[in-house]
Amino acid sequence: MAKTIPISLDAMGGDHGAEVVIPGAEIALVRHPDIRFQIFGNEKVVRPILDRYPRLKAASSLIHCDVAIAMDTKPSQALRQGRWRSSMWRSIEAVKTGEASVAVSAGNTGALMAMSKFCLRTMANIERPAIAAIWPTSRGESIVLDVGATIGADAQQLIDFAILGGAMARALFGIEKPTVGLLNIGVEEVKGLEEVRTAGRLLRETPLRSLSYSGFVEGDDLGKGTVDVVVTEGFAGNIALKTAEGTAKQIGGYLRSAMSRTLMSRIGYLFAKSAFDRLREKMDPRKVNGGVFLGLNGIVIKSHGGTDAEGFAAAIDLAYDMVRNELTHKIAQDLVHYHRGRYAAAAPVLEGDL
Amino acid sequence: MAKTIPISLDAMGGDHGAEVVIPGAEIALVRHPDIRFQIFGNEKVVRPILDRYPRLKAASSLIHCDVAIAMDTKPSQALRQGRWRSSMWRSIEAVKTGEASVAVSAGNTGALMAMSKFCLRTMANIERPAIAAIWPTSRGESIVLDVGATIGADAQQLIDFAILGGAMARALFGIEKPTVGLLNIGVEEVKGLEEVRTAGRLLRETPLRSLSYSGFVEGDDLGKGTVDVVVTEGFAGNIALKTAEGTAKQIGGYLRSAMSRTLMSRIGYLFAKSAFDRLREKMDPRKVNGGVFLGLNGIVIKSHGGTDAEGFAAAIDLAYDMVRNELTHKIAQDLVHYHRGRYAAAAPVLEGDL
Repeated sequence: MAKTIPISLDAMGGDHGAEVVIPGAEIALVRHPDIRFQIFGNEKVVRPILDRYPRLKAASSLIHCDVAIAMDTKPSQALRQGRWRSSMWRSIEAVKTGEASVAVSAGNTGALMAMSKFCLRTMANIERPAIAAIWPTSRGESIVLDVGATIGADAQQLIDFAILGGAMARALFGIEKPTVGLLNIGVEEVKGLEEVRTAGRLLRETPLRSLSYSGFVEGDDLGKGTVDVVVTEGFAGNIALKTAEGTAKQIGGYLRSAMSRTLMSRIGYLFAKSAFDRLREKMDPRKVNGGVFLGLNGIVIKSHGGTDAEGFAAAIDLAYDMVRNELTHKIAQDLVHYHRGRYAAAAPVLEGDL
Repeated sequence: MAKTIPISLDAMGGDHGAEVVIPGAEIALVRHPDIRFQIFGNEKVVRPILDRYPRLKAASSLIHCDVAIAMDTKPSQALRQGRWRSSMWRSIEAVKTGEASVAVSAGNTGALMAMSKFCLRTMANIERPAIAAIWPTSRGESIVLDVGATIGADAQQLIDFAILGGAMARALFGIEKPTVGLLNIGVEEVKGLEEVRTAGRLLRETPLRSLSYSGFVEGDDLGKGTVDVVVTEGFAGNIALKTAEGTAKQIGGYLRSAMSRTLMSRIGYLFAKSAFDRLREKMDPRKVNGGVFLGLNGIVIKSHGGTDAEGFAAAIDLAYDMVRNELTHKIAQDLVHYHRGRYAAAAPVLEGDL
């Protein structure tokens, strides 16, 4: 029998806490019977819900935690209140101790990132973690990072993000050498941020073994799926992500109101119902639920706070895939190769226009 | 009879040049018979096309220009080749001399902005021009700026953009005191760019007569239409704009493929055709064609380069509205009030935490 995959869950995170986390875990367990869960949360709240799912209960251990981090808690506050003892902290800590291979929480992003950084620390040679999102495209899916872990990134940090995202694309899409683009703006006059230009030059001059650098991409390339991995600093990345989500909702609203407007359109809707169902499934934000924290000594997955059990299960599926496909190992490998290559290339690069 | 509105056109700009510009002008003229056009371009190319539209011909003067700026010309190159004598330059110059009240070009953005800055110069007290886009929202339309004139903006420049965008909202939407939001990211830990935070504090502390400051907005507020004017620096603004355009195209593609997939869905499509037509019209990018260059001594409208006659006509409509509703006057007024207010408020502000 294959090795089991140990996953830790913060049962108290998200708008609905254990009411979503536990049923979500059940759904994921049916799809991946080799998961073993460590569930962190208030026993009084979680136990009665867990009792409803005997299969899940058999595959899980429930660890009681006194403290739950509220959705509006500020990161510094969360660290003060919740370090060592909150369900959020302990689910992350399980990754540090090796009891879990990945942690999943629907808790608030700022608190989760602050705790993850504090507990797991950034990897050697990585200055800043990033949040990677899976972006549905016309061609399939891409990875976009950073979508909001930090604001701003220098050229070296952008290259780090490229390596992290590249490893994730190898793990998630099974692509040997994923294509990577740097998000930029195309107005000739300005030619983009200095840091983006420098990162582009470095990636061109010193090609990486683990990825294929494709140059700059623009905002509309995100939906096209022009590259497997889009790299950006977190401010623009977060705005792009939320703008796309907002636009999708907006068009969904247009479509609904257009279809319900006349008798003819309502009849048309009935005929084309399967097509609309397909479209709805395609646009379902729950399907791509899960931001992956990369660059730390361990993987943490952030689920949307407002998602339902199906959405939370998708975040667990993502966590499962990341472990099964050895994301951490791939990242470590790629980083070693990159830094080895950097030392080898150091002399000619220093002679260049660095 | 009301005063005529003189509009200058760069007939050589865009992917299709005069073949789109001239029919576009005809469409706009039918809607606004009080426009008088000054058309700048190569006479040999433009004259035969103009001859096909007797009504337009009667309302226009054609001014021959030897030089046309190609779509891939770099800004510096465009200035070298095209200053004083290109159709792009001369259409802008007509605004400077007062022969036209506004210029419209589908030429390349970088070149058009470089020439506009060089020819018209920025307004007193305005350091940087901005490009304002009209953003279709679930509630109607908003104005978003800057969408790519320059990268980065300090707090004062963001406030300038707020004033420029506010004046445009008054001119375009007829709103007495438009609501203005600063585009930011919501991750608590980081709380957004320093400059955005400072601009927000200043707008809160010293309320402007011409606008109502609503605080920070996020990427998904763009499609919702949470505020009338969204202010951002040009890098994030350009990425947001192109991401939204890309997402709309992507979903349009999903919808088309879903509707054509089965016989039932094709029948459904026929029944609901009027609803789909409505949706298509709602999502038609030609309808909101036109980036408005703000902050210069004169207004220049940039049409999409790849648009058709209908789209170019929409850019002229926008130009017409901007003049009819006295955008330049409104901006000047708001700036005077702002700076007067600043002097008055200078003492207490200096005692504060500036």
